[in-house]
Amino acid sequence: MTEKRFSQADLEQLPSRYRAHLCNTLPGFKSLNLIGTQNAEGVNNLGIFTQVFHVGSNPSLIGILFRPHTVRRDTLENILEHKHFTLNHVHESFYQKAHQTAAKYEANESEFEGVGLTPEFTPDIKAPYVKESQVKIGLELADRVDIAINNTVLIIGRTLEVRVPEEHIKEDGYLDLAAIGSITCTDVDAYHSVNKLARMAYAKPDTDPTELPENLF
Amino acid sequence: MTEKRFSQADLEQLPSRYRAHLCNTLPGFKSLNLIGTQNAEGVNNLGIFTQVFHVGSNPSLIGILFRPHTVRRDTLENILEHKHFTLNHVHESFYQKAHQTAAKYEANESEFEGVGLTPEFTPDIKAPYVKESQVKIGLELADRVDIAINNTVLIIGRTLEVRVPEEHIKEDGYLDLAAIGSITCTDVDAYHSVNKLARMAYAKPDTDPTELPENLF
Repeated sequence: MTEKRFSQADLEQLPSRYRAHLCNTLPGFKSLNLIGTQNAEGVNNLGIFTQVFHVGSNPSLIGILFRPHTVRRDTLENILEHKHFTLNHVHESFYQKAHQTAAKYEANESEFEGVGLTPEFTPDIKAPYVKESQVKIGLELADRVDIAINNTVLIIGRTLEVRVPEEHIKEDGYLDLAAIGSITCTDVDAYHSVNKLARMAYAKPDTDPTELPENLF
Repeated sequence: MTEKRFSQADLEQLPSRYRAHLCNTLPGFKSLNLIGTQNAEGVNNLGIFTQVFHVGSNPSLIGILFRPHTVRRDTLENILEHKHFTLNHVHESFYQKAHQTAAKYEANESEFEGVGLTPEFTPDIKAPYVKESQVKIGLELADRVDIAINNTVLIIGRTLEVRVPEEHIKEDGYLDLAAIGSITCTDVDAYHSVNKLARMAYAKPDTDPTELPENLF
């Protein structure tokens, strides 16, 4: 293994696209969600996002980091206007369609139709779910935090509804995403499936690392 | 597949640990990094974090979301005091040791020694790297954003140094984390390795989804 070192000055001098790919891969693997919203005309919007993360459990809060709001950003604008949105995990069976939602469709075209995914509604959420997804979360806008250092926008949603496969919830609340077939992503275009290694017991200083039993993983 | 639905009221009424496991798994798979810091006495601290994400490429910024600062949080306190910290990817070869850094060692005990990982230094970064890691990033504190809604703390670091395997950087800057053997995590204890599916070309409305060639993935 030959180590390649980039200093801060090296990073600044890289071509912009090269730096973007390198920097997007540096933090590691990411969650992969389709965000469903509606616009003012009732068009069902769907966009793919890799910047979705856990913020809190009590209450249940989920964060999404959006790039600077300097160009048209349908998903962000719809969330700010209508408050409701959905998160839908991406699985191996439809990741190519999920990727295709990133294409610049016209504002009055639904990405659902453009890529061939199916909108689905529940009474409580004023935004479309993705029927093909096995992990679906309905949220309402809870907070917006502007990140001054580079004008990104952190949207925090409060969970109103969770829809998951009952047989893949373990007895302690753990959701078996590997069995469900959710996938992970690096950069903004590189899709990966997963294999289980182990789920580990709570770590203690005087105890060797121990795996949890199979029924919890 | 039987769908299990949780309403907001259902979530609030769940036992606290059950809700924590469920909510931690909902957003999907996560990055997995060891953060290296030093305390005021020069003890090398190492902690495992799943809440590390891309914030920007120009300049290169990486965010870490910390739980509320209501108890001793060595990593957060060391970053606020000393400004420098490192991120180090976790690989299949040492994830049990990485997990063990979560044990509550005394403040004057180094987790490096406690779990059996090796601190490593470069001239520019006043914090320890993990020698066993293949993706190492040295950062300095650039911003702190307090998230009022639940008292979590977002730390944003500016990248000062990147150290990665040269043979796994593709010609467009993409870093092949699957070949490097970086792993992913869900919840705070469930470790997964990855398999490549595809890296997709830039999506356009009138073009079918297309895979990038093998030399870029």
